[in-house]
Amino acid sequence: MSEKRTEIGEIGEFGLIDRLNEKIKVRHEDTLKGIGDDAAVLDAGDKVKVVTTDLLLEGVHFDLSYAPLHHLGFKAVAVNISDIAAMNAIPKQITVSIAISNRFAVEAVEALYAGINAAAEHYNIDVIGGDTTSSRSGLVISITAIGEVEKGKEVYRSGAKENDIVCVTGDLGGALMGLQVLEREKEVFMANPNMQPQLDQYTLVTGRQLKPDARMDIIHELRELGVVPTSMLDVSDGLASELFHICKQSKVGVTIYEDKLPIDKQTYDTAVEFNMDPITCVLNGGEDYELVFTIDQKDFGKLEKHPDIHFIGHVTKEESGKFMVTKSETAVELKAQGWVHFPGDSK
Amino acid sequence: MSEKRTEIGEIGEFGLIDRLNEKIKVRHEDTLKGIGDDAAVLDAGDKVKVVTTDLLLEGVHFDLSYAPLHHLGFKAVAVNISDIAAMNAIPKQITVSIAISNRFAVEAVEALYAGINAAAEHYNIDVIGGDTTSSRSGLVISITAIGEVEKGKEVYRSGAKENDIVCVTGDLGGALMGLQVLEREKEVFMANPNMQPQLDQYTLVTGRQLKPDARMDIIHELRELGVVPTSMLDVSDGLASELFHICKQSKVGVTIYEDKLPIDKQTYDTAVEFNMDPITCVLNGGEDYELVFTIDQKDFGKLEKHPDIHFIGHVTKEESGKFMVTKSETAVELKAQGWVHFPGDSK
Repeated sequence: MSEKRTEIGEIGEFGLIDRLNEKIKVRHEDTLKGIGDDAAVLDAGDKVKVVTTDLLLEGVHFDLSYAPLHHLGFKAVAVNISDIAAMNAIPKQITVSIAISNRFAVEAVEALYAGINAAAEHYNIDVIGGDTTSSRSGLVISITAIGEVEKGKEVYRSGAKENDIVCVTGDLGGALMGLQVLEREKEVFMANPNMQPQLDQYTLVTGRQLKPDARMDIIHELRELGVVPTSMLDVSDGLASELFHICKQSKVGVTIYEDKLPIDKQTYDTAVEFNMDPITCVLNGGEDYELVFTIDQKDFGKLEKHPDIHFIGHVTKEESGKFMVTKSETAVELKAQGWVHFPGDSK
Repeated sequence: MSEKRTEIGEIGEFGLIDRLNEKIKVRHEDTLKGIGDDAAVLDAGDKVKVVTTDLLLEGVHFDLSYAPLHHLGFKAVAVNISDIAAMNAIPKQITVSIAISNRFAVEAVEALYAGINAAAEHYNIDVIGGDTTSSRSGLVISITAIGEVEKGKEVYRSGAKENDIVCVTGDLGGALMGLQVLEREKEVFMANPNMQPQLDQYTLVTGRQLKPDARMDIIHELRELGVVPTSMLDVSDGLASELFHICKQSKVGVTIYEDKLPIDKQTYDTAVEFNMDPITCVLNGGEDYELVFTIDQKDFGKLEKHPDIHFIGHVTKEESGKFMVTKSETAVELKAQGWVHFPGDSK
């Protein structure tokens, strides 16, 4: 065959996505935002609807040898709600499609759905449709979430301005360390099935990995305080990667401070135990589903005393670049790592 | 283990879906319709948004040994647009998620997307988001489509009334016969890879299988003629199955006439060649993506001369049951077969 064949690994997942997105056109005026943010934005009268979707595959995004089905169902919803939160919107509806193989019992599918329904209750959303089908291989879960916000109050990645303050919620790196612990215990178990997993001292980090919670609480609080962030994302790929998105789309630079980065003691201790640099875990660990956002300085007073919002730096001119000031007061350039889902991916 | 284990095959795909749906609650007033129709219906000011989703897996819903990727991309969009059409709505946006294994070249993914983009152009819709990830096994495509219609003009399965006329568009059974031909040629090819497939005389039926077209033309024409059907579905599982949905949700019966059922000559001839009953193919063949709908008798005059709408029967009282009057003027009870996606499924 003389046809050109380019391996996906040669251009990487992001390269592939860029190449596919280049050819996509927007035809309708009521598509206010298509591809390129945490969710798409559609006109709906005096409101906008925001729409996001995620596709999760067994063996790629989750491992049923340690992810309980109830938790998995909850997480599959939460990761989509997190994208709705990142638009400053309130989630309203989800569709849920699953593909399951015959090796699943009805009771197992019900456990998965019990987790989905628990998340629907927790986030006050309706399951409005979906598709249930068989799979010849692993479990597949595809969820689309729809949210709503008053027109003009939706928050994009592109609105950060020089001197805005960079905020993050909660703490970071926990989900990555949880994954490390679970993978290690799995290996131990595979080598000797009679060994009981040693997880008691890691419940915080394994919980962050197995059952993350989207920060809708923060979105409701920002509303009550009258604060609309200038830009926002959820931390799914890692803090550094998300800051790169804000900088690229807002055409700004950023400076953050190592000593301001929030890390839980258990995350820190686990990183040390695994011979990993805790700050690298904070910067590049994915799946924490916290929010990173920028606010105008005038709003700082309203959030200053919030126990779960951390002020980690400020927005600079684009030409100033992207830096972290270390504890030893050295400015090091930030690198976006993000998650790589294609084995052999070069980017 | 003492836990109860029920095999999916014991209760069937529909039994499983019923069991899962029982536990789903609707919490929001603006969810006008959740599960139970071709699409969900959401309030959006003076309009409603309709939302539908489909999950397609290699080896279950398509076979890459004969489905060209370009056609597959087009079809994946068309089957969702068909659900939007079945609500009497105009499609506006889709999200597209795909999972691909490394055995795909970038060019193959681009061919799939070229089909998706061709469908987006054909149906005048925007691709507003999605997810691209890797798969350890086959190709997975998940599409969610969003459409819009003036509030009150959306059409449910539940609005058919006694004496309404039952209409179907186009012709039926072709996609099923196309599948039979493609499967036979695949077997021949597997047995002897030097054999060229003999497909020339089957282009209509294979085309119906590989690249179906959603009947948006009919939706636009009904609008121009001022006709709002009283109930509507698209023929994805087979005519009999779709009529059962209308009867169940509208609490009516139906009588259709064998001699009115539309079948193309090539579909008929192919069925005979395969020793299949052509009328069974029309009644139970899935994936034709034609529309079946009911209209009030007062609207009959407006559609009477339409070359592609066929009047196949009428709606009766629920207690009258569901019957087909054969060419020999015998009334036989209709049976819903539908598609079965779970191997070993008993329903």
